[in-house]
Formats: sequence, structure tokens, C-alpha cells
Amino acid sequence: MNLSDGIKRLLLGRKLSSAQLSETLLPKRIALPVFASDALSSVAYAPDEILLTLSLAGMAGFMFSWWIGLLVAFVMLVVVASYRQNVHAYPSGGGDYEVATVNLGPNAGLTVASALLVDYVLTVAVSVSSGVQNAKAALPFLIGHEATAAAIIIVILMGLNLRGVRESGTVFAIPTYAFMIGVLVMVGWGLFRIFGLGETLESPTAHYEVVGDPIYQQFTGVMMIFLLARAFSSGCAALTGVEAISNGVPAFRRPKSHNAAATLLLLGSIAVTMLLGIIALANLTRVHVLDDTGGAYFTLDGVRQDVHVDTVMGQLAATVFSDFRPAFYFIVAATMIILFLAANTAFNGFPVLGSILARDGYMPRQLHTRGDRLAFSNGIVALAIAAVALVVAFQADVTKLIQLYVVGVFVSFTVSQLGMMRHWTRHLREEQDPARRSKMQRSRIINAIGLTCTGTVLVVVLISKFTHGAWMALLAMGLVSVVMKWVKSHYNAVARETAWTGGERTLPSRVHAVVVVSQINKPTLRAVMFAKASRPSSIEALTTDVDPDETRVLLEQWHAADLGVPLRVIASPYREVIGPVLKYVRELRKTSPRDVVCVYVPELVVGHWWEGLLHNQTGLILRTRLHFTPGVMVTSVPYLLKSSSAAIDRMEREDPMAYRMIGTGSPAVEPKDHDA
Amino acid sequence: MNLSDGIKRLLLGRKLSSAQLSETLLPKRIALPVFASDALSSVAYAPDEILLTLSLAGMAGFMFSWWIGLLVAFVMLVVVASYRQNVHAYPSGGGDYEVATVNLGPNAGLTVASALLVDYVLTVAVSVSSGVQNAKAALPFLIGHEATAAAIIIVILMGLNLRGVRESGTVFAIPTYAFMIGVLVMVGWGLFRIFGLGETLESPTAHYEVVGDPIYQQFTGVMMIFLLARAFSSGCAALTGVEAISNGVPAFRRPKSHNAAATLLLLGSIAVTMLLGIIALANLTRVHVLDDTGGAYFTLDGVRQDVHVDTVMGQLAATVFSDFRPAFYFIVAATMIILFLAANTAFNGFPVLGSILARDGYMPRQLHTRGDRLAFSNGIVALAIAAVALVVAFQADVTKLIQLYVVGVFVSFTVSQLGMMRHWTRHLREEQDPARRSKMQRSRIINAIGLTCTGTVLVVVLISKFTHGAWMALLAMGLVSVVMKWVKSHYNAVARETAWTGGERTLPSRVHAVVVVSQINKPTLRAVMFAKASRPSSIEALTTDVDPDETRVLLEQWHAADLGVPLRVIASPYREVIGPVLKYVRELRKTSPRDVVCVYVPELVVGHWWEGLLHNQTGLILRTRLHFTPGVMVTSVPYLLKSSSAAIDRMEREDPMAYRMIGTGSPAVEPKDHDA
Repeated sequence: MNLSDGIKRLLLGRKLSSAQLSETLLPKRIALPVFASDALSSVAYAPDEILLTLSLAGMAGFMFSWWIGLLVAFVMLVVVASYRQNVHAYPSGGGDYEVATVNLGPNAGLTVASALLVDYVLTVAVSVSSGVQNAKAALPFLIGHEATAAAIIIVILMGLNLRGVRESGTVFAIPTYAFMIGVLVMVGWGLFRIFGLGETLESPTAHYEVVGDPIYQQFTGVMMIFLLARAFSSGCAALTGVEAISNGVPAFRRPKSHNAAATLLLLGSIAVTMLLGIIALANLTRVHVLDDTGGAYFTLDGVRQDVHVDTVMGQLAATVFSDFRPAFYFIVAATMIILFLAANTAFNGFPVLGSILARDGYMPRQLHTRGDRLAFSNGIVALAIAAVALVVAFQADVTKLIQLYVVGVFVSFTVSQLGMMRHWTRHLREEQDPARRSKMQRSRIINAIGLTCTGTVLVVVLISKFTHGAWMALLAMGLVSVVMKWVKSHYNAVARETAWTGGERTLPSRVHAVVVVSQINKPTLRAVMFAKASRPSSIEALTTDVDPDETRVLLEQWHAADLGVPLRVIASPYREVIGPVLKYVRELRKTSPRDVVCVYVPELVVGHWWEGLLHNQTGLILRTRLHFTPGVMVTSVPYLLKSSSAAIDRMEREDPMAYRMIGTGSPAVEPKDHDA
Repeated sequence: MNLSDGIKRLLLGRKLSSAQLSETLLPKRIALPVFASDALSSVAYAPDEILLTLSLAGMAGFMFSWWIGLLVAFVMLVVVASYRQNVHAYPSGGGDYEVATVNLGPNAGLTVASALLVDYVLTVAVSVSSGVQNAKAALPFLIGHEATAAAIIIVILMGLNLRGVRESGTVFAIPTYAFMIGVLVMVGWGLFRIFGLGETLESPTAHYEVVGDPIYQQFTGVMMIFLLARAFSSGCAALTGVEAISNGVPAFRRPKSHNAAATLLLLGSIAVTMLLGIIALANLTRVHVLDDTGGAYFTLDGVRQDVHVDTVMGQLAATVFSDFRPAFYFIVAATMIILFLAANTAFNGFPVLGSILARDGYMPRQLHTRGDRLAFSNGIVALAIAAVALVVAFQADVTKLIQLYVVGVFVSFTVSQLGMMRHWTRHLREEQDPARRSKMQRSRIINAIGLTCTGTVLVVVLISKFTHGAWMALLAMGLVSVVMKWVKSHYNAVARETAWTGGERTLPSRVHAVVVVSQINKPTLRAVMFAKASRPSSIEALTTDVDPDETRVLLEQWHAADLGVPLRVIASPYREVIGPVLKYVRELRKTSPRDVVCVYVPELVVGHWWEGLLHNQTGLILRTRLHFTPGVMVTSVPYLLKSSSAAIDRMEREDPMAYRMIGTGSPAVEPKDHDA
């Protein structure tokens, strides 16, 4: 264990392999934080976004925050109730993608998958940006460098995930409970100070008046309705992450569905309590925030002010704990950490969804098999690049990012609820038992309410936010689904082209071995020996005459070594290696088309990627090019340099299962019987 | 020939392969423009830099431009005279690197190589930036977007060079002669208008007074000497590119050295004439430019002015051809084009130097063989990235870039002249013939003068520019040479480790073939057939049980196909492919260490890189990992999909020699005889 492993273990607890994770069934008290960080963390920015949007209507706008908050809470409870049905019906953890595909067909599944993929990127971008915004209350030097800070955090998360950090229960439990308890204590203590002690708590921005955009000043009219709709849509960001539990049912202790449903209800209640508590306290302490990009501004005694405004959470913590600074830092730190944890869940969820999509042929197939670190890495890097691009493009501005965010969540909610309706209808056709029928009918009604509700929200979101950014989210989803469809059709075409119908089993008559040689050394010798060991019909070594002097030396040494294999020198007028070899091999194939040519390429195995840049590049190009000649196999014969042990050590450390030999006795790997 | 080929051919003439280029020996009238674009183009910015630097001393500073110009011209003629000796002594075209290595040892060669590599990057950055600055006189919309424009030009140059554009004589001849004649006509016509017609020509900036930095106002003192030294150092940028002819001697018609030396003299005379002509005209028409970053500014009637200033060339063209606008555009266009051509020569020179360094083991070996397009591409892309980074970091500001530029050139000049001194001294020890001895002694004196002169300039440059940017150039050279030394020592270590001393020729006793299978299709079948054709001692197919249902189907199909090869299913508890195969192969090796295992991997060959992302990734990882197990060969068996024909077409178009089959009759490739 080296130092960085030690630090990681210290920070993140003992690493669990994916297999271990699924074997460790989670009790509810651990499952809640593991799956709730995403959903709970969104209460750190949802109230801000509601108040920000309302600020465009000036001081009077804030009056509506109560109503918006209650409406969001209502939708949250409806969604929770609906997903409790999903959890019972699909305990396999397939999530919305499975529900949509099974009940509504592949196109609906693809729609949900695109929405989820885009949303993972936005989860990272929004959560990290919000974490940085919140951190500013305690770390003012971040002001003006939000995008840079957010990008650095994303890169760090990427690095941790590339190194193979998996969430362990306790890592999630501590900050999630800290955040939950911290916020609830803050709300409780704030209310107690106001109502119990009769104090007058005033937020740092209480004395500022907000002047909104003149368009929204008249309180009747379509513009105001639009604004309220938009505030509500932004507030619905609080719902993101609720569906996470429905993907995680297999990780719960038995009875799985029951426990998952109970946890879901608990999560919903806590989230609603926190959201409403924050909005209540923000109203009571007169927290004023503003959407300065929308044209709102502060005045103090009628004079325009240009001040920096902290997040609602930061302002509340500073106000409630005005006499106890450590608690303020505790709230800010917990908020920041839970937001980063929420971003981290996307880094775990994205490859898992990718794996399921790969299984169904919508994504490169190698993403399907878990544990192949390299394959998962691609997903992690892609997610990080997209999130950094968003954060930089939108300058880590949560208010701008949130305009793109809610669309995907509600597309996924709506399609999933529609799928559940179908599910119950289909099962009701077959079910005879009256008790179960009535239970199903009850579930169908709940999902119908869920569908109506989420569908309505989706329409509201689309209408109120389309020009503000929702169009970008839709466009991204469209692009993602087009690419996935293309991938699927490509795989189908290849499967048709390569399908075996029984013919084509003629054995090539002879194998002609060609060993590519540039100098006489141990790797060359090994390649020659291995080629000879495979007893080809004929064998020769081949070298290109790039430098006449070197070639002469090689010929002499070859003669002296007396390997029993002739060395053929081919001309290379342009001092080229690849072209002449290619040409020669093609000629060979042409003269005896029923034979197969096997080209042996000695390859140096090194321990570090930078050493790799100095070796084998010619072999790599040669292999790629030779592949375009039918009937030619390319065999690489490795020669391990001493430095390769560094790479072997590293691989053993990362993936002990594949490298460690089993002690003694019977062979470790047995053919597995499949008659079960 | 597709459309883009057509446009390229139209713009750049028929593409010449490197072999064709070296076969086409150049007459002097073509050689001059081919090798001179770099050297001549620098007169487009050298006068600007002299005047800019002097502007810091206010109006009085410009008086010194004559003296600085004459001094630069003197150094230029000394350097030309010195390099005429190099050309005679080293007609092989090895250039300064060869001269330094042969006469002063590898460390001196490495110093020169580092200096040249850094200078290639700066040539691109400075030339393109200056081209954009000059273009602004005719295209004012570029103002404010210089860095972007320069970066785009560099990317275009990279693209053209990646596509394999080679300079053809005429492409260089037309703009170079256009520039040469244009500037000389401009100078001549300007002088004629002033002295012949008695007109008063005044540049657009003639009426502005320049107020310099107060530090330089007093005319005595060290500061002023420093300023003059710095102006001279910047002016020495005019000398860059003079050494190009010494690298190109083999391309001249016979007598090669004689013709090259004559061309060098011609180049020197023209460059000096142009430089002095421009400085004279700039003084006569009172061209005023200023170094605004240094604190100088314009005043008009005592009032500070903030105006955009064109380059000296742009101002002169506008002034001299004030009554004939097309000539102005002609000069501006020719200046811009020759500067871009100068940048392009770096794109050709960089990979050539890289190839020589690779031959000597200082760079990745695959750079050595010409014609391997992929290897050269790396150099071209690296050059472009470095140049774009410089252009962006310095905002395409020629004045700032030039501070870094001249160091490398004079390091290379000085070391080369020192090497030539040694060369003559060594030869004089052996030479007996008095006539040749006296000629050698004359050459040695010339090189001694060259050494003194360039050495002095180097010291002046280092002292006057160190804090202005020369330190960055030196640091970069240091880093480059450290990396090259590391590469060399790595290659030496590997050569020692792999050196064959006569042992290790035991033939493995048996070959055990393992075919990796995931489904039954034509590629799998081909792999099995090829593996069988190579008649191994034992053979089996291997599949990992990622999905029990798929495995069952595969087992049934395998049984039905009756291929005569047993299929072994290995367990994969973590749904992983790579790990279990690795483990199994390692077990095999362990049970019979004297045998060799040959793993056959079916590989789909596709036509486009994006299809490549969807296939063979698992095979790629498997191969990489298997290489770390000694005694295991990996054979990839390609199966060409229909789409692969697109790639074959593309490769044939790019590299016809390697792909086109020779008609009929005798085999195209014959073993070459090396007794000559």
C-alpha cells in the first residue's frame, strides 16, 4: 500500500469491489444516505432558484415562494408515491430505462436513456457548481474563480473514480446525516429563536430592496404566470435523484422491495421537510437574492447597490448561528460535501447505465462487462469532459445550468409512469385473484396520478424554460439518441454480415510464417524460436533495407547465428519499413491464395506508458495495416523488459483477482457446468 | 482524385514524394526561393522590431536605426561567409547538428538540436503572427483577433502538412520572387519619388511624436546601451533561416557545393539590400512605430493619441504606392504569403531533424524511417500544438515572441562555427598540399571571424533579452535536451538488456492454441480454422461465462457446428472477460512452463475510426494484458467487414506504392544484393 492508497483509504474507507458491494446488503439506515445524497443535496440549490426567479418580479415576487415551495413539495410526494409502485413492480433495479423498454418498447427506453445520460452530466455540473457557490460563503477567495474551482473539483472526482474508488456506506452516511441533521437543527433553532425567544433574525440581505425587471411589475398578465411557472420549474430541481432508490433495490436487505419503498418514503418526507423549512426560514429572515442576469438589482434607501450575495443556505447559516460561528462553518462544509457526493453518484451511475445500454447494443459493447477498468474509464472521462465543458461554458452559474437540468428528469419520470400504467394494465388482464387485483388497481391509480402530475410539470418546464436553455437539453438528448440508434443499427448490420450459416469451414492448406526482423537481439530470437515452434509449412525472416550499412551488419550476424531460418532483405527506396513489408506479404498471398500467412512481430513489453512511446510503434502500424489484407494473421511475440515488472505490480495492486496465482493443488479454473 | 485533392493540386502544384524531391535537382533560380523564404521573410518583421525597441527612447531613438541596420547587415554578411565554408565542408546536408556532433561531440550536437527544435516552434509562431500583423493593414477586421487568426493559420498549415503536401519548387518560387521584386520595386520607387521627383513622402504615422519611457530619455548611461543592444538583438531576427541552405546542399545541381555557396551569397546580398532599403525608406518617410507594452506612446501637438499602427511594411507600401492602391495590396499579400511559407518550411524541417535525431537514438525510433506517414504526423502535430500555445500565450504579439526567438539561432550559429574551426584544425593536421592548406587556413579564418561575431551577438542577445523572454527559450532548450538524453539512455539500457550473447535458443517443446470466442460467427470460425491450420500440439476454444443464457446458446451452437475443437467455459463471477482469460492462460503456462501458449483473437476490420470504437476493444485490452505473461503469443485473426474497403481505398490513395499490386510476371519484390 503506497502513500496515496493510504490517504484514499483514510478518506474513503476500505475500497469495495463491485461484487463486494452487491453482496453487502444495506440496512435502511445506510441505504438512505447511499441513495439520498443526490436527492437531498438538491435542497441546497432549489430554494435559491425559486427565490432568484421570483426576484425578477421585485420584492412582491418573494411572497409567492411559499406557494411554489408547497407545490414542489406536493409534486415530490406524488413522485415518491409513484416510485414506491415501481420499486414493488421492478425489484431488479433496472430503473426507468427498464420500465420504459419493457412496457413501451425500445424507442421509449431510448428516450429515457438519453434523458438520463444528459442528466448525469448536468447532475455533475449543477452539483459541483452549487457546491462551489455555497463554499463561497466561507471561502470568499473563490469569488470570481467559480468555473476554475468547479472544473478542478470535477477533475479530482474523475481522478478518484478512475483510480477505482467505490462508495462505501459510511463514506456516504457521515456527510449525508451531517447535512440532514445540520439543516434540520438550523431550521429548528432558527424557528425557536424567532418564535420561542421572540428574537428578530435578519439575514445579511434583509435590508436590501430588490428591484425586478419592469416587465414583471404588473401583477396580472401572462408574463407573471410565466415567471411563476419558471420559478416552479426551477424548484422542481429538488426532485432530481428521487429515482435513484428505484435503481438500487437489489442492494437492500430483505424484504428488498418493502425496505426500498420505506426508505423512499423516508427520503421524500425528509426532503420535503428540509425544503419547506428552508423556504420558511428564508421568508422569516427576509433573505433576498436576485437574478442579476435577468435584470434585477438591489437598492438600499433607493440607491442601487452592487453587492455579492451568498446562497440562501449560506445566509441562513450565518443568520441563525450568528452567535456561534462553528455551526455556520459546519453547515457550509456539510452542504459543500454533500453536493460533491451527489456529483460523485453520477460518476457511479453513468457507467452502470452505459453497461446496461451496451448490453442492449446501444453503446460500445465493451462497456457491458463490468470490472474491465479501461472500459469504465472511458465513461468516466467522457462524463468529466462534458461536465467541465458545461461548467466552463456557463461559468459555473447554477441559475443558468438549472434551466437545462429539470427537463431530463421529468422526461424520465413521465415516460416511466406511462410505462407503469401499461405494466399494471397488462398484469390486470391476467391476474384473477381479487385481492391482488385491487392492489394492482390501486397502484395503477397512483401511477396515473403520478403520470398526470409529472406530465404536467414536464409541459410547464418545457414551456417556461424552452428559450432559457431547455432547448439545449432537448437537442443534446436528441443527439444522444441518434448516436445510440446508429450504434445499434451498426451492430445489427455487422451481426448480419458476420452471421455464420454453415459454410466457409475450409481449412487453409499451408501456413507460411514470416518473422519481421530489424536487428538481432533477444526479442527477435524469441520471435524466431516461437515461430519455429509452431511448425509452419515454410518460414522466413524479413527485413527492410532502410540503411545499407545496418543491413550488411544484420546479414553477417544472421549468418553467424545460424538459426536455420533464411533472412530475406527487401528493398526500401524511400527508407520506409511498413510499405515494403505490406507489399511483400500481399505478393505472397497472391501467389498462393489458399494458404495463410502468419506474420510474427517481436514486441518489447515495458512498464510505463512513456516508455511505450519509444517502442513498438512500427509494429503497431504494421499490424493495423496488415489486417486489411485477408488471410494474414499477425502474431505479436512479447519480450518483457525488466521495467515491465512495474506495470505488473501496478496491475496486481489494482486487480488482484486476475494476477495472483492460486496456491497449489487443483487448477483454479474449472469448466463450469451449465445444465442448472 | 476528389475535390479537396483537386483544390490542393491547383493551389500547390503536383505533390512530390520525398524521393522525387531529392531526385529533382534544383537549379539556382528555383533553389533560391525554396530555401530563402524563411530568411527573406524575416525582413518583414526585423525593421519593425528595431524601430519598436528604439521607440522606447522617444523620437531621438529612431536616429539609431541606421546604425543598428548596418550592424545587422554586417553580421548577416559574416554569417553568410561562414556558412559558405560549411557548405563546402559538409555537402551531405547534415547542417549544424552534424557539424557540431562530428567536431565537438554528442553534447554539442544535442545543444544545437535542442536550439533548432525550439527555434522551429518559434519560426512558426513568429512568422504566422507577423503574417497576421501585416495582413491587418489590408484587412482591418483582423484587429483584436490576431491570436485567433494566427492559431487558425497554424492549424491549416498543420492540416496541409498532415495530408502530405510537399513543397514544390514553383509554389515557393512565385511568392518568394513576388515578395523580393515587390519590396525592391517599392524601395526603388520610393527613393525615386523622393530623390528623383523631389516629392515629400510621409508615412501615415509621420506626424505623430513618440514619447518614450522616461528611463531611456537621458542619452548617456547604461540603460541606453542596453536598449541599443536589445534593438540590435531584435534586428538579428533577420538572420534566421540563413542556415537553411546548408541543410539543403544535396538538392542542388552539380557542382552542388559551388551552386549552394553561390545561392547563399545571392541570398545574403538580397536580404541585406532589402533590410537596409526598408530601414532607409522608413527613415525618409518618417515611419513611427512604438512599443506600447514598454510604455511608449504617440502624441499629436502634445496631446496623447491612441491609434492603431500598421507594420513598417504596410505603412511603406501605403506611402510609396499612395497613388496606386493595387501595388499596396500586392505588397501586403506577398508579405503575408511569404511569412506563411516560412512557417511551412518549419513544418518540413522539424520532422527531418526529428528523423536524424531518431537515427541517433535521441527521439522515438519510428521517426527515423521516412514515409511512415503516422510517425511524421506526430512531429507535425506536436509542432502545431506548441506553436498555437505560444501564439495564444503571447497573443500573436511579434514583439514579445521575438524576445525568445534569436537565442536558439545564435546558439546554433556559434556552436556550428566552433565546430567548423575544429574541423579545419583537424584537417590541417593531415593535409600536406600547400594550395589546399592555404585554402583551409583561409576558411578557418573566416569561421573564426564568424565564431567571434556570432558568439558576441549571442552574449549581447542573452544579456539584453534574458529577462524579456530569452530565459524561457533557454529553459525550453534545457528541457528538450534533458528529454533527448533520457530517450538515448533508455534506448541504450534496452539495447544492453536485449543484446543477444548466443544463448537462449531453446525451442519451446509444444504449442498450445487457445481461441478466444464470444459467439459463433464468421470471424470466430475463421480464427478457429486458422488456428487449426497452424497444427498446434493442442487446441481449445475459450469463452467466459458473462451471461449464463448467452453461454448456454453458445454451447448448443458450438456442439451443433461440430468444429472438432472443444469449447471450455470459464467462470466469471464479476461479469468480466479479461481477468478470467488472463488467469486461465497463466495457469496453463504454470502447468507446462516449457510450452508456449498462442492465444488467437478474432478481430473485425472496419473502415472508419468511429466504427473501430465499437469493436475489438476487449481484444485490444486482452492483448496488452497477455503481453505481460512470458511465453504467450497473441495472434489476431482479421475478418474484413465490407466497410473496410473504404479504408483500403483511402490508404491506396494516400500511399499507392504499398497497396497497388504490380501487374503480372515476376515477383515485384526481389531480395536485394548487398555486396556492393
